[in-house]
Amino acid sequence: MSASAAPTAEYQASDPVQDGRAFRSALGQYGTGVAVITTLSGGVPVGMTVNSFAAVSLDPPLILWSVQNASGRAAAFIGAEHFAVNVLSAEQLDVSRIVASPDAGTDSFSQIAWTEGLGGAPLIDGAIARFECRAHDVLPGGDHQILLGRVEQCTVREGEPLLFVQGGYATHESFSASRVEAGTVTAATDASAASDPAPFVRLVTAVNHRLSRNFDEHRGRFGLSVASSRVLKRLSAGPLTVEDLVASAFLETQAIEDALSQLTEADLVEGDGPTFRQTLTGRAVREQVAENARHFNDATLAGLPEADVAAAYRVLRALAHQPLQFHNTKEKAQ
Amino acid sequence: MSASAAPTAEYQASDPVQDGRAFRSALGQYGTGVAVITTLSGGVPVGMTVNSFAAVSLDPPLILWSVQNASGRAAAFIGAEHFAVNVLSAEQLDVSRIVASPDAGTDSFSQIAWTEGLGGAPLIDGAIARFECRAHDVLPGGDHQILLGRVEQCTVREGEPLLFVQGGYATHESFSASRVEAGTVTAATDASAASDPAPFVRLVTAVNHRLSRNFDEHRGRFGLSVASSRVLKRLSAGPLTVEDLVASAFLETQAIEDALSQLTEADLVEGDGPTFRQTLTGRAVREQVAENARHFNDATLAGLPEADVAAAYRVLRALAHQPLQFHNTKEKAQ
Repeated sequence: MSASAAPTAEYQASDPVQDGRAFRSALGQYGTGVAVITTLSGGVPVGMTVNSFAAVSLDPPLILWSVQNASGRAAAFIGAEHFAVNVLSAEQLDVSRIVASPDAGTDSFSQIAWTEGLGGAPLIDGAIARFECRAHDVLPGGDHQILLGRVEQCTVREGEPLLFVQGGYATHESFSASRVEAGTVTAATDASAASDPAPFVRLVTAVNHRLSRNFDEHRGRFGLSVASSRVLKRLSAGPLTVEDLVASAFLETQAIEDALSQLTEADLVEGDGPTFRQTLTGRAVREQVAENARHFNDATLAGLPEADVAAAYRVLRALAHQPLQFHNTKEKAQ
Repeated sequence: MSASAAPTAEYQASDPVQDGRAFRSALGQYGTGVAVITTLSGGVPVGMTVNSFAAVSLDPPLILWSVQNASGRAAAFIGAEHFAVNVLSAEQLDVSRIVASPDAGTDSFSQIAWTEGLGGAPLIDGAIARFECRAHDVLPGGDHQILLGRVEQCTVREGEPLLFVQGGYATHESFSASRVEAGTVTAATDASAASDPAPFVRLVTAVNHRLSRNFDEHRGRFGLSVASSRVLKRLSAGPLTVEDLVASAFLETQAIEDALSQLTEADLVEGDGPTFRQTLTGRAVREQVAENARHFNDATLAGLPEADVAAAYRVLRALAHQPLQFHNTKEKAQ
């Protein structure tokens, strides 16, 4: 392959100056972790949830993140001699939200377990990496300032990271598990269970990966973003406010507001007060999506013996209910 | 909860100046997307695979990324008037590797489909977001330079992002699918299939999520990083070089070299030439891991009727083999 004559037709282009929503949505295509930056300001702990953290330099060890000039918390960080970066684990969605809340005050730190790091900057218990930084530089970045920190100590623990992808929270599945081992399962159909470590786990992972991808592509989104599809789904149960949606859709406020704008423009949702509801067109689209899903389910299981399918449902339901008996109790103790 | 007296014991602390490997490993706890930055230098396309991309400002629209001073490709980017950021999709692992290869030359662009963007910077076909930037600023960042770009146009398409987490490539699973809907399945045990869209898909997702987490915690890692566990596993099949491991372990070169150092220090792996192999201790650890996995498999399925388990295996194996019949052929055309 080489350079072709014209861009692929399926791309949507936008001018980021004219259309901030499209620009934010494009930025969301790049997945990130979630970090809580903390400092001590006038003896009081201050925190911000960000996804602008990035590694910069190994020697000297430098990292960066950005703070919005308009943020009420910017001054505390720009004037700080020390700050800490806490990389959140997949178990810490609540920590992300407590700190991200627009009216989060110093009392957020009474709802979170933490210890004091260098310069008093809070180190959050359970974070999978914590970088204790001395302020190194503050650089101009448009409506943000870019803060560089020189890392004086880092602490890590095992755990799965919390991710932020396409406007919503997520976890990861490594290629090793989802692809290579899925490949192994597919190739070695009837490999003996004894020689294949945890074969049932691998098989479920392989099937999940395949079905999820098929289903994603099958269901279609009627030109809606991932976030808009999810918001429309939540609204199919009844009218909701932005706050209700934040609590139930695992999306952040900005992503929900952008989704509501998109849905309103497409005449799928209406509402201008605090409450939003599906329109008749929105309901019709949701019904089409549900119909697609039923069709997918039927097509997936078609051709398999009915008794086997019924037994598979029984086994999977039992496993979905199985207590987390192998769960590491140390982790839960936090 | 509030500030406790001492940090949790399970944390490992390190000084990033003394221990670059530990610092790199800590940075890897923060998940990122994968971006290929491109430019035209002296009429020739140049690219770099990075995970230092970050959003900076909405008004003006600015983004940043970092380039190592020592990189042979740094000059091309630092002197460029335009560059493009291509956010890779989960289907573009090959693009990431072609461009990341230390000896990648201009011929890498003969192996990739692309079109010319502003200033001639290559826009890679299939990337899920592409930011066409005018050089805005170059800021000092230790052994790297931080490049700011002013985004003049962005183009997006639907798709799942490629992620980089804990030294390896990954995909994501949104909380909506893996947690909320898992919760629904668990709560509504015998909800009728008709009223529950694609219930089999949800059930498999819920079970996968629960089993994968249980299994991760059950197997233990004998104090090894995720990357080290994976490298040790690959070496259990026989001696391999770093290049072999890059090709098979879905980890990048630096992560593999760090893993080999850790494994060698722990006496689980030996080799100083191009080839590395398991030691007897390494073999014993691997056998312990495999034994744990067999125990996990047995414990997971214990108590379920044998005939049901056999039927579930048959159904899952059939689905793991099922052709991607719903796959969007447009995507495959690339």
